[in-house]
Amino acid sequence: MGQIQGLAVHAAGAELLPFRYDPGELGKLEVEIAITHCGVCHSDIHLISNDWGLSQYPFIPGHEIIGTVAAVGADVHSLKVGHRVGLGWQSNSCGECEWCRRGLENLCPELEATCVHRHGGYANLVRANARFVVRIPDELPSEEAAPLLCGGITVYNPLRDHGINPSSRVGVVGIGGLGHLALQFARVFGAEVTAFSTSEAKEEEARTFGAHHFVNSRESKAMKEVAGTQDLILNTATADQDWGTFIQTLRPLGTLCFLGVPPSPVSVNAFPLIAGIRTITGSPIGSPSRLREMLDVAARHSVKAKTESFTMAKANEAIEKVMKNKVRYRAVLAG
Amino acid sequence: MGQIQGLAVHAAGAELLPFRYDPGELGKLEVEIAITHCGVCHSDIHLISNDWGLSQYPFIPGHEIIGTVAAVGADVHSLKVGHRVGLGWQSNSCGECEWCRRGLENLCPELEATCVHRHGGYANLVRANARFVVRIPDELPSEEAAPLLCGGITVYNPLRDHGINPSSRVGVVGIGGLGHLALQFARVFGAEVTAFSTSEAKEEEARTFGAHHFVNSRESKAMKEVAGTQDLILNTATADQDWGTFIQTLRPLGTLCFLGVPPSPVSVNAFPLIAGIRTITGSPIGSPSRLREMLDVAARHSVKAKTESFTMAKANEAIEKVMKNKVRYRAVLAG
Repeated sequence: MGQIQGLAVHAAGAELLPFRYDPGELGKLEVEIAITHCGVCHSDIHLISNDWGLSQYPFIPGHEIIGTVAAVGADVHSLKVGHRVGLGWQSNSCGECEWCRRGLENLCPELEATCVHRHGGYANLVRANARFVVRIPDELPSEEAAPLLCGGITVYNPLRDHGINPSSRVGVVGIGGLGHLALQFARVFGAEVTAFSTSEAKEEEARTFGAHHFVNSRESKAMKEVAGTQDLILNTATADQDWGTFIQTLRPLGTLCFLGVPPSPVSVNAFPLIAGIRTITGSPIGSPSRLREMLDVAARHSVKAKTESFTMAKANEAIEKVMKNKVRYRAVLAG
Repeated sequence: MGQIQGLAVHAAGAELLPFRYDPGELGKLEVEIAITHCGVCHSDIHLISNDWGLSQYPFIPGHEIIGTVAAVGADVHSLKVGHRVGLGWQSNSCGECEWCRRGLENLCPELEATCVHRHGGYANLVRANARFVVRIPDELPSEEAAPLLCGGITVYNPLRDHGINPSSRVGVVGIGGLGHLALQFARVFGAEVTAFSTSEAKEEEARTFGAHHFVNSRESKAMKEVAGTQDLILNTATADQDWGTFIQTLRPLGTLCFLGVPPSPVSVNAFPLIAGIRTITGSPIGSPSRLREMLDVAARHSVKAKTESFTMAKANEAIEKVMKNKVRYRAVLAG
């Protein structure tokens, strides 16, 4: 096989530049994907900036990948050349630990992330262990489906884990790439859905995504009015907030679940947690089986990312626009 | 009926003084209990000092009550004069809200606490709604059972809520009134039990209560060695601690549950919550049906408080000793 061509970052915060690497022999359990689309996730930008101290340069970002199978390793039987497939944040795991054996590969301590210490999807090709490469249902257009591979599964997983159903009240904090998918999925589960945003301008569109209610979380009066109303609040925002206020917004037995990582520690009083058995937790992506389930649900219920398309050559422009919070709601690079 | 005689606090932090009050007519759904024993809980001391800003003076503390039914209201059919019964932190609820109807009366927003805005168990008599008065199994001696009514249910409830079973690893932080009961109950559930304490002197006894392991939580090396090992950590201590270290002690999907209220807000990074779906929560007492279940389990598995007995007249002495952390492990006033 030949070299892989992509766009790599060579230093923290630098622009993407054309880059080639030799992937070597295709592993027996690997799949090579010819990339047609790749979403631009905020995690890519955190990795580009080395916000998490994980980045090794040069690297090719991108982990919301859709394409077609270009080659399969000798021991891959579930996928064939030509299949339309997706690859998200996770590209491998140890396969042998308790979590892998329980089908919770996203909790594997040796989780390999698609563009951490390896090269991701802002490229013509990418490889991954076949276990993490999923087929895309025919009903889902590639561009609108690409952001489901990371953003979609990240919001879907906690809705399932927390047993959301038509009696539930679900709040979504932050109406962006993840948030606009969270509103759609929460609505599909039959929940009463409330969007929390600091931007009034997003109200109308939040309602089209499925929100029954819109609350400006900067207005303390509006926040007081919804105190004690939510069963599950998904925080998709990455800014610091007054988390105590969101805890007060939970019903007894309610949960505040972090999907985005705020820069400062989360600080809350223990008292409302104790008195109402309220919970703070978090959730990372989802397992491959949950990923397949999510795509099936998205196909059957027409959950799609609202995207803005850029050619792969304009990736730097896309990233700049995402960083300025100007994309509504997910940038996707088309190969 | 006559007056009730007890020991009341007349101002924040003051000594208990003899006090009488007229309870009026016995309500149709009420039970009057002739008190034989009353545990001294840290919550009594917080109320005496008005640490929670809830106290109204004068009031009679005490909410770990055992005695015999002295009188029952006209509509009470489940209890008879002479029955040996217990009364814990909760003495009434609205009976009509969602939580009451679901059998989760401990989450009722109108929860009435036995010695908050009313008089409790450092007295000869106390009254409560019959729904919150539970019979004491014959196998349980009154003195050793009294602390189960608040301390016992507080540690038992989260073990049940979090599905603790013989595959679980349970940590108990703070080996005092609650902690020594938590070790016993966790062992009864079949869990592998670890005691976390800042006092090495408690190791031997912690093991007799059921701990398989003992960790000095002040020793960072010892804490590192148990990183990622616990499914559920019950925090029974009321001092501030480095909660991030305890989060690191959790396995993926593990939970840190607050039973004691630390004075400062709980501050933790969101990242380990997200990466391992780890949870911070709390738990308050338990419902009356859970209280009955807990007493039954305690009777069948010989869970008993280790107590130090004081006559009711020596209540001030008992309180002083509890405040100095000198009681091993629960003071009980005998009427």
